[in-house]
Amino acid sequence: MVEQVTWVDRMRTKVVLKNDVGRAALAEFVGTLVLVLVITSVCAQNVLPKAGSANALIGVNIGVACGIAFGIALSQRISGGHINPAVTLAFLVLGAIKPIKALAYMIAQVLGAFVGAAITYFLYVDAINVFDAGTRRVEGVKATAHIFASYPGAHLGWFGGLFDQILGTAIFVIIVVHTVDRRNHYPIWVRPFIMGLGFLMIGTAMAFNAGYPLNPARDFGPRLFTLLWGWGSKAFTFNELGWFWIPIFGPLVGGVLGGLLYNFALGFHTPADGSEYELVTTHELKPISEK
Amino acid sequence: MVEQVTWVDRMRTKVVLKNDVGRAALAEFVGTLVLVLVITSVCAQNVLPKAGSANALIGVNIGVACGIAFGIALSQRISGGHINPAVTLAFLVLGAIKPIKALAYMIAQVLGAFVGAAITYFLYVDAINVFDAGTRRVEGVKATAHIFASYPGAHLGWFGGLFDQILGTAIFVIIVVHTVDRRNHYPIWVRPFIMGLGFLMIGTAMAFNAGYPLNPARDFGPRLFTLLWGWGSKAFTFNELGWFWIPIFGPLVGGVLGGLLYNFALGFHTPADGSEYELVTTHELKPISEK
Amino acid sequence: MVEQVTWVDRMRTKVVLKNDVGRAALAEFVGTLVLVLVITSVCAQNVLPKAGSANALIGVNIGVACGIAFGIALSQRISGGHINPAVTLAFLVLGAIKPIKALAYMIAQVLGAFVGAAITYFLYVDAINVFDAGTRRVEGVKATAHIFASYPGAHLGWFGGLFDQILGTAIFVIIVVHTVDRRNHYPIWVRPFIMGLGFLMIGTAMAFNAGYPLNPARDFGPRLFTLLWGWGSKAFTFNELGWFWIPIFGPLVGGVLGGLLYNFALGFHTPADGSEYELVTTHELKPISEK
Amino acid sequence: MVEQVTWVDRMRTKVVLKNDVGRAALAEFVGTLVLVLVITSVCAQNVLPKAGSANALIGVNIGVACGIAFGIALSQRISGGHINPAVTLAFLVLGAIKPIKALAYMIAQVLGAFVGAAITYFLYVDAINVFDAGTRRVEGVKATAHIFASYPGAHLGWFGGLFDQILGTAIFVIIVVHTVDRRNHYPIWVRPFIMGLGFLMIGTAMAFNAGYPLNPARDFGPRLFTLLWGWGSKAFTFNELGWFWIPIFGPLVGGVLGGLLYNFALGFHTPADGSEYELVTTHELKPISEK
Repeated sequence: MVEQVTWVDRMRTKVVLKNDVGRAALAEFVGTLVLVLVITSVCAQNVLPKAGSANALIGVNIGVACGIAFGIALSQRISGGHINPAVTLAFLVLGAIKPIKALAYMIAQVLGAFVGAAITYFLYVDAINVFDAGTRRVEGVKATAHIFASYPGAHLGWFGGLFDQILGTAIFVIIVVHTVDRRNHYPIWVRPFIMGLGFLMIGTAMAFNAGYPLNPARDFGPRLFTLLWGWGSKAFTFNELGWFWIPIFGPLVGGVLGGLLYNFALGFHTPADGSEYELVTTHELKPISEK
Repeated sequence: MVEQVTWVDRMRTKVVLKNDVGRAALAEFVGTLVLVLVITSVCAQNVLPKAGSANALIGVNIGVACGIAFGIALSQRISGGHINPAVTLAFLVLGAIKPIKALAYMIAQVLGAFVGAAITYFLYVDAINVFDAGTRRVEGVKATAHIFASYPGAHLGWFGGLFDQILGTAIFVIIVVHTVDRRNHYPIWVRPFIMGLGFLMIGTAMAFNAGYPLNPARDFGPRLFTLLWGWGSKAFTFNELGWFWIPIFGPLVGGVLGGLLYNFALGFHTPADGSEYELVTTHELKPISEK
Repeated sequence: MVEQVTWVDRMRTKVVLKNDVGRAALAEFVGTLVLVLVITSVCAQNVLPKAGSANALIGVNIGVACGIAFGIALSQRISGGHINPAVTLAFLVLGAIKPIKALAYMIAQVLGAFVGAAITYFLYVDAINVFDAGTRRVEGVKATAHIFASYPGAHLGWFGGLFDQILGTAIFVIIVVHTVDRRNHYPIWVRPFIMGLGFLMIGTAMAFNAGYPLNPARDFGPRLFTLLWGWGSKAFTFNELGWFWIPIFGPLVGGVLGGLLYNFALGFHTPADGSEYELVTTHELKPISEK
Repeated sequence: MVEQVTWVDRMRTKVVLKNDVGRAALAEFVGTLVLVLVITSVCAQNVLPKAGSANALIGVNIGVACGIAFGIALSQRISGGHINPAVTLAFLVLGAIKPIKALAYMIAQVLGAFVGAAITYFLYVDAINVFDAGTRRVEGVKATAHIFASYPGAHLGWFGGLFDQILGTAIFVIIVVHTVDRRNHYPIWVRPFIMGLGFLMIGTAMAFNAGYPLNPARDFGPRLFTLLWGWGSKAFTFNELGWFWIPIFGPLVGGVLGGLLYNFALGFHTPADGSEYELVTTHELKPISEK
């Protein structure tokens, strides 16, 4: 079949970003924007009450997982699809990305998260206004700040919060690094969905303490938006410890830990050619000629 | 193995539609029929109350996503599987389909949606009669019109409604165009299910405002059916603005926007050969001969 | 790697069934047994009440879909994985299976369904005894017969019931035939899971009227078990029309209809080599050498 | 592209475990640790009450299934991904693993399960303290022991409990052996997710009686943790029969049974080359040259 050259083909050669870092940062910006737009909208659909249209926890878990999957899918062929500073830092420590590029990624991720939160706000501003009568609150039954950023459960101490964020991110990054490790033979198209499924798993197991942000950009960007857009400084001064630094610091530590743990416990010991260790099944009927 | 020639093989050469546009339009008709039959039945199972057999929101989200996936899967090898005028218009603007063919697609889609809604009606007419005692209503607790077409939440202004439909469709079309872009390496069989998963994501994030129709044919066809089959003109005159034009106009705008956004932000910058930008993982053990 | 010959390898050549029909019938027996064991257990977990351990509708839908998928997966490489007389009859009409073999399949399916139901009974007999105090009932709040076979909603007339079973099975068989059609390029391992997903879709859309059995063996086998094992003749005489013949006759008609509809509306028009009709995307960057 | 040699590459050759059994045991330890950490956290999120953040049964089923899938995925390329003594025993009987190695696997699995339970405890210790005011209980409404290990429903007798564990594990091992049987053509990356889906199926069908542990390590390891960490001997003396031996003994019997049943009923009869028995579809348009 002869394919016609369309205006899109002609445009491409003019528009394509020649700068390697700039192109990757754009992809990280878009991927994180989609991620945060989806996650905060999913949370809005959980927080805002309406008969028959509110998300139960499983709906939140599935929606967030899809946001991860598609945020990565959209960007992975251009930037690798980190969309999370904890993932970027882990790859930096593992030597898979250069420091300058890593910094550009992180800035793009925070900007994308901020814009994603702003779009969710405009999507649901009518519903938020009906719900809180125009007064934005961080606490109480009419609170809406947790649509955008994480706030800990009342039972949680600061040590528990930190442990929660480190552990959850470590498991997520173990899954991320496992998935991109070529010796595990995942086709490239399926990788984002394996990572999303990993986040679904974490959501069913570790949402209870603090809502599993596990991503400094995803948490800080929207929190900044709420600070600037009517919720006030309470977004950053919630409880005596401030909380806000925990879902930044914890995931960065957890991500590096996860990247190292994967390699020392599993990755270093995985054979490059799988056949020699592959589980021997006894069900393979030998062809007659081989007997 | 010698395969026998069956009557199906003999029939095929006689029945096959020689006309390219006609064949594609038939596939669009069938695909959209299945889509709308499923979606409206899923909504019926949400609206009609019965202990233990009513859909929660997650059931609606999953059912609708499967309807998208199988509607596309059944038609994609013949027509490309648009089953949505907003997708067809986006591909027209991108130069991937000719205007005459696009028009044929859209007509087939609306007809398919109308017939799909009619089949759902006959499937659930006994249950609807018990529920509303024979009086078809658009509003109130005994309303059933929202089984077939979208109606906005009470909180939603017309600007919010338009923004909702534009944004949701833009994200869906970004995912559609991302999926069919060969540089993203999706096997053809998996594409409909990736698109369905994208719609599942949107359903967990953007069902709250107006039920995420995001498809002019899916909304207009069933609405026309309710106008003609007992619900009356209220289906088109609901609230002062009429509403009905918003899930037609919004998705068409959003679809074109999504098609352009994908290309300018991501598609133009995606390498044709992926290896050079692929995420460098550090876990690949070099074969001894390469050291 | 040199694989050792184990006792399983040595046993295989002695045990393998040489008879083509017998081997396939055994696979159909096992596949349908697993299918019905799972489906009826899923329904038990929906009907029997216990805080925190009862299935909501979405749990039923997902469990039943998995039962379909694994019932087919276990048997498809040996018998084709019909596990449903309506599928077998559709393939008979399409000329893909011989009449004698089809009859053997159907008998094996009904036997497998009967044994599957019996196993579920023994799995849940303690819980059933606590629930109904030892009196097996077909009707009322303490009824347990609908764990095993389908009973229609009170709103449903006989014509509606027949339409429900014909329509649901037609859609399922359209998906089955679509999936096994080689021109749709599904890898063989994924086919059972596509069919299961199709059944999940049908469960979110068409469970409301009569619980979507859509399989004469799955409904008749367990119903026979309840007749013989303490529920009595009411299992077959429920309501004036008897009901029991509707989920037998309806699916057989619907299956044939689905098989024909797929071919006339889609299959006959699907290109054997896909490339010529594949959706033209405009995103493929031509290699420099081709410009 | 020239890939740089990173510190990870240099480290690998120094760190890699040369001992075959030790490397596999480490993978089994990590895989089972992740499995049990996830499962017990999922159960905590079901047991500990909090509006909007508690798992319904479907959330438990999905979370547990993901725990199985990722536990296997992380370890399968190194050890085969058993993470369950019942699976290891089944492979031992089938001749696919040697006795010494099998013993090492089982010890590693129990250790991994113990450590996984301990991590969950520290993750949720704040929440558990608020819930039970510091008194660890095995029974009553403030009980938390069933976060870690299985306890039977009040309706269940010991024979029913044993039958439940044998049946559930037999089905799971049938699916495991089916999946790794090369003649069923599953790509290696997808196998853990097929097994996880099989466990999801079992969870929707067989959670009612005793919470479907189906894994001696997964049940015994965390139970031992509760014995040592404040819940006391009641963890092992619950009800007159002790219960604790049933989810150890039952799965071991069920696993062997499942491994044998798969082979005698299905595996022995599955063709090594699938084409000759593949379901003949009548939809393949012959190329003109072949007519």
